[in-house]
Amino acid sequence: MKIAISGKGGVGKTTFTANFARWLVQKGATVLAVDADPDASLGTILGISDDVLTDLKPIVDMKELIEERMGGSGAFYPLNPNVDDILDDYSVSVGQLRFFRMGNIKGGGTSCYCKENSFLQALVNSLILGEKDTVILDMGAGIEQLTRGTALGVDVLVIITEPSKVSVQTVQVIQQLAKELGIPRVVVIGNKVRNLNDEKFLRDRFSSEQLIGIIPYSDELLEMSINTGSEVLPEGSLGVQLNKIYGKIIEEGDD
Amino acid sequence: MKIAISGKGGVGKTTFTANFARWLVQKGATVLAVDADPDASLGTILGISDDVLTDLKPIVDMKELIEERMGGSGAFYPLNPNVDDILDDYSVSVGQLRFFRMGNIKGGGTSCYCKENSFLQALVNSLILGEKDTVILDMGAGIEQLTRGTALGVDVLVIITEPSKVSVQTVQVIQQLAKELGIPRVVVIGNKVRNLNDEKFLRDRFSSEQLIGIIPYSDELLEMSINTGSEVLPEGSLGVQLNKIYGKIIEEGDD
Repeated sequence: MKIAISGKGGVGKTTFTANFARWLVQKGATVLAVDADPDASLGTILGISDDVLTDLKPIVDMKELIEERMGGSGAFYPLNPNVDDILDDYSVSVGQLRFFRMGNIKGGGTSCYCKENSFLQALVNSLILGEKDTVILDMGAGIEQLTRGTALGVDVLVIITEPSKVSVQTVQVIQQLAKELGIPRVVVIGNKVRNLNDEKFLRDRFSSEQLIGIIPYSDELLEMSINTGSEVLPEGSLGVQLNKIYGKIIEEGDD
Repeated sequence: MKIAISGKGGVGKTTFTANFARWLVQKGATVLAVDADPDASLGTILGISDDVLTDLKPIVDMKELIEERMGGSGAFYPLNPNVDDILDDYSVSVGQLRFFRMGNIKGGGTSCYCKENSFLQALVNSLILGEKDTVILDMGAGIEQLTRGTALGVDVLVIITEPSKVSVQTVQVIQQLAKELGIPRVVVIGNKVRNLNDEKFLRDRFSSEQLIGIIPYSDELLEMSINTGSEVLPEGSLGVQLNKIYGKIIEEGDD
């Protein structure tokens, strides 16, 4: 299963992605987590140290290696298990989770990230996964990765939103772009919901089929995004709510 | 004076930009406010209606018109006052403030925003301003507009940050990119600072020369970002603090 997490800047994409990835690992999945944002922070929130992250080679550099191994470009990338040794070189393992990053930080005024996005799109689109493998992409803020088609080939696009007008506007643009990309399933999750007014704001704007979950504003989640590296998933009623949302994303029980 | 506002997604760039722009207008400046984020929300936070924003032509379409008028590409763009009629067609006026947006929303998978960024860079870099004119660019979240060089030619880059590790990491990357771009002045502003620990976190990471201001966490500012269109600037002690920060950005009193 290939899942991308999108939404406006600051809505909580990365904290959500990190917790979701840890939950998938707990459920027995092998998770390939890709930080698709050049302004990367998923690795940090997963608790990987700065030194390790700095040394990690970006996946855009895998392109030639994989194409050599598989013979020619445009090929499918059966990442698992045929090229596992390449993967090892380009990822950091945290238990059953493998962390990748899309690209290096470039010099000021030198270049865009079109090449990186283009390879990531080819990779995601043509990945052949084992039954227990899940790929999670933490997308950059905003819409450009969707207009570039980076998310092409994902099975589910999860859009995180705050209960604010500008954040919801971004969701609506992303929904339209996802439709144009032919992404089969697009779901919305409300985050940082402080009260019933906030919840109503979101429920008035999305159908119950679109809006599959509401996450309350939580100091615990805020702390996770500030003091990074916690390996403990939220417990109590917040934990139950989150687990229910994760289950809905992967359509647990429908299989 | 040309000012760009940058920082990680969700740190409060757009709300800050909108209030700063209104303050400049109150001080008697003519402000050209440019939403340089394809996932635009500055117009909404300035209170411009969705219908008007949808109809607004993006500045990338001005390129040919201006080049025709000025004769050839690569020319300087003395936007004021020679081509004011073109400006009128591509902006919404809110009092002494003129609002522009960089580009249209594109189709899913169709394209990047390199062309738009490239024109915006040329425009900002070669703008000749009147004495009372100020250009403010609200940049997209993250770093790609800096690796693309969109901010080349600004006099001051303002980086907004929350007191969190990932947000500060982004500041450090942006500072480095700004140096590579040769931006003459780069300042940092702490936002959503909830307590003394938060403040210490930031003061430990930036010199007092870099960190020119701290904005406390404020429900009033949060409301501004949620319920858009307020034309009233924050008052009381928050207002005083903000005004002091704005003054430092434009180096009021140093002139």
